[in-house]
Amino acid sequence: MNKETAGKDPDSAFENAHIYVHFKAVYTLALKKGDGKGEDGWVCTAQNFLHIHGNTGKTGVLSSLSVGNVMNQVMTQKPHELLAATLAAELEAVNLLIRQRMASQHAPRIPEVTAHLVEAGGKRLRPMLTLAAARLCGYEGDHHLKLAATVEFIHTATLLHDDVVDESAQRRGRPTANLLWDNKSSVLVGDYLFARSFQLMVDTGSLRVLDILANASATIAEGEVLQMTAATDLRTTEEIYLQVVRGKTAALFSAATEVGGVIAGAPDEQVKALFAYGDALGIAFQIADDLLDYQGDAAKTGKNVGDDFRERKLTLPVIKAVAQATEEERAFWERTIAKGRQQEGDLEHALSLMAKYGTLEATRADAYGWAAQAKSAMAKLPDHPIRQILTDLADYVVSRLN
Amino acid sequence: MNKETAGKDPDSAFENAHIYVHFKAVYTLALKKGDGKGEDGWVCTAQNFLHIHGNTGKTGVLSSLSVGNVMNQVMTQKPHELLAATLAAELEAVNLLIRQRMASQHAPRIPEVTAHLVEAGGKRLRPMLTLAAARLCGYEGDHHLKLAATVEFIHTATLLHDDVVDESAQRRGRPTANLLWDNKSSVLVGDYLFARSFQLMVDTGSLRVLDILANASATIAEGEVLQMTAATDLRTTEEIYLQVVRGKTAALFSAATEVGGVIAGAPDEQVKALFAYGDALGIAFQIADDLLDYQGDAAKTGKNVGDDFRERKLTLPVIKAVAQATEEERAFWERTIAKGRQQEGDLEHALSLMAKYGTLEATRADAYGWAAQAKSAMAKLPDHPIRQILTDLADYVVSRLN
Repeated sequence: MNKETAGKDPDSAFENAHIYVHFKAVYTLALKKGDGKGEDGWVCTAQNFLHIHGNTGKTGVLSSLSVGNVMNQVMTQKPHELLAATLAAELEAVNLLIRQRMASQHAPRIPEVTAHLVEAGGKRLRPMLTLAAARLCGYEGDHHLKLAATVEFIHTATLLHDDVVDESAQRRGRPTANLLWDNKSSVLVGDYLFARSFQLMVDTGSLRVLDILANASATIAEGEVLQMTAATDLRTTEEIYLQVVRGKTAALFSAATEVGGVIAGAPDEQVKALFAYGDALGIAFQIADDLLDYQGDAAKTGKNVGDDFRERKLTLPVIKAVAQATEEERAFWERTIAKGRQQEGDLEHALSLMAKYGTLEATRADAYGWAAQAKSAMAKLPDHPIRQILTDLADYVVSRLN
Repeated sequence: MNKETAGKDPDSAFENAHIYVHFKAVYTLALKKGDGKGEDGWVCTAQNFLHIHGNTGKTGVLSSLSVGNVMNQVMTQKPHELLAATLAAELEAVNLLIRQRMASQHAPRIPEVTAHLVEAGGKRLRPMLTLAAARLCGYEGDHHLKLAATVEFIHTATLLHDDVVDESAQRRGRPTANLLWDNKSSVLVGDYLFARSFQLMVDTGSLRVLDILANASATIAEGEVLQMTAATDLRTTEEIYLQVVRGKTAALFSAATEVGGVIAGAPDEQVKALFAYGDALGIAFQIADDLLDYQGDAAKTGKNVGDDFRERKLTLPVIKAVAQATEEERAFWERTIAKGRQQEGDLEHALSLMAKYGTLEATRADAYGWAAQAKSAMAKLPDHPIRQILTDLADYVVSRLN
């Protein structure tokens, strides 16, 4: 994945968050020590340390570490890390499945391209949402592992396809995005991953799951196409922005949580709540990411302030400013975003216009609103330690904005 | 679709075949005249004119023409044209479905890109195979229409993705392939069509159909990736070539016929025969196409002799020559294909080496062998006018080689 894609991938926010913990090393160690069968592993949040003793399944995780040591780690753990620890054994099974299904007997180029994306440092946020949803609904089978791998494959395929360079963009002198592989490999290996994910879903034998993922795929693809045209079109409304965000991020989040509930045979109301949670979480996530582009600290976010402005991407803070623009201001947005004729001082002027209308604050309020929606959806699910972690996760995605 | 893709698309062979008939105009006229309900249409081959009186469904086809006139047309009709006439009403329903499902509420770019490919002059060979297989097995529902549309969407998406330019290829000074749209549009709109096809299959409610199409998708994607590396690798065997051909052409042909039988609830033996027919037909088709590249007449095939050689694509005639090459000849193939350092007279020398080992004749024999396999598979299916047309189609794809 190249720099540009890394910036677009909302997960990057996780990589660059400000609370640094050593958990990754602990997790890696635990995975290495796990012998693959028999032991009960456990992990907990600081606040309900005494209440959780989840069976993480086949592999003992953290069992080789002292309780004191774990407590120490746990105190500063971020929700997604806690989720990773809680679901460690299942995640390992998902990783195994991913490696197996990624392999191609005939085309060695495939694992070569995907290993980089799938193996290296992936946070597995989306598959974790599927595992968490299934567990939360009391699922005891193993189809959720296939669905988690499915979701990760779809995500990876999308990243590969996002990597494909628009030639006209190149002609405008922007950097070449796919440094590691050529366009053709990105496209065809992405297609292979889509096909693999499709096989995995079919393996679950659930038409309802297939229906959900088919619809999510269409929303994702439609959103991506819409983004191409909407990004530089000043007529883009908040409603269109939301469609783009759903395609880019929220549709896969909501499908990930929904299929977890469906495969667990959860009641309709819970399945709906899981969908609503994933949808709202994804939207909060993406709005936060777009906001950080204008107010972030490069050291934390890995993005320079104003990258989206320079790349002529209409995101919520600008859309809100355009909606209230005077004629003169509209001409400014027309020149800089629609026509892309930017000059020195334009970013500063754009920021001053956003300040004038308080659009950064309004955007932040929107992100918080979506996070609150995610939490209220989660409240409809059964009381379970994972419910708390997912609730905390909704808080976490917007906590970066403070 | 650009010239390069047109060359790769085996359907182009149909466009350029030597028996010219006026059927297209008749077909168009009939479609325009059809009022959409009630009339029984019919069409037939010359030899069994009296035995067929198929109900083509909702739209009367050819009914406005005199029998003598029809006979006249029919005498010179090619099998795929006869198939189109026989299935005209269903094909029209498929076209309608395609237009409906292609539409995007949010992203006008989508129909803009796909209309060109899906609407214009498509021969609908793959969807016809699905319709024909279902009809042959006595199907009376309408899920086969969805599957036919699915197959056409997958085909179109594959063409769009094939259009994406490998930047390194551009750097080697080869022509830009996607003249009409940029890479990004080709990729994302292709993804949208895949997603749409996925929704259509799910609509049939048949897990078995989903399984077949998921596996076909994986074979297609794997074959495409394999081709990238195998095309210029002199170690490519006939076996690997066959895998590439299955990915490129035969996997969708065989899936198209197989799902037709499955949706009709045909017995396993018939479903297997339908798969075998599609597989062998697709392989015969592609081998014939690759052979015509070296022995064809540009006026008939739309390709210049030796395009594959110039584009450094190892196809069967060359693979057979490489397998028997002397050390010196191997060095020639190494330089021209593996390294791509071609000079004047190389194509002529390549042709002389193929002549030396009789590889064009051997390749032709292979194509005929696959056509014979297709016909023998078809013999396992119920006696039905469509069975004859499909049998004739197998002969037709290799008849171009004489």
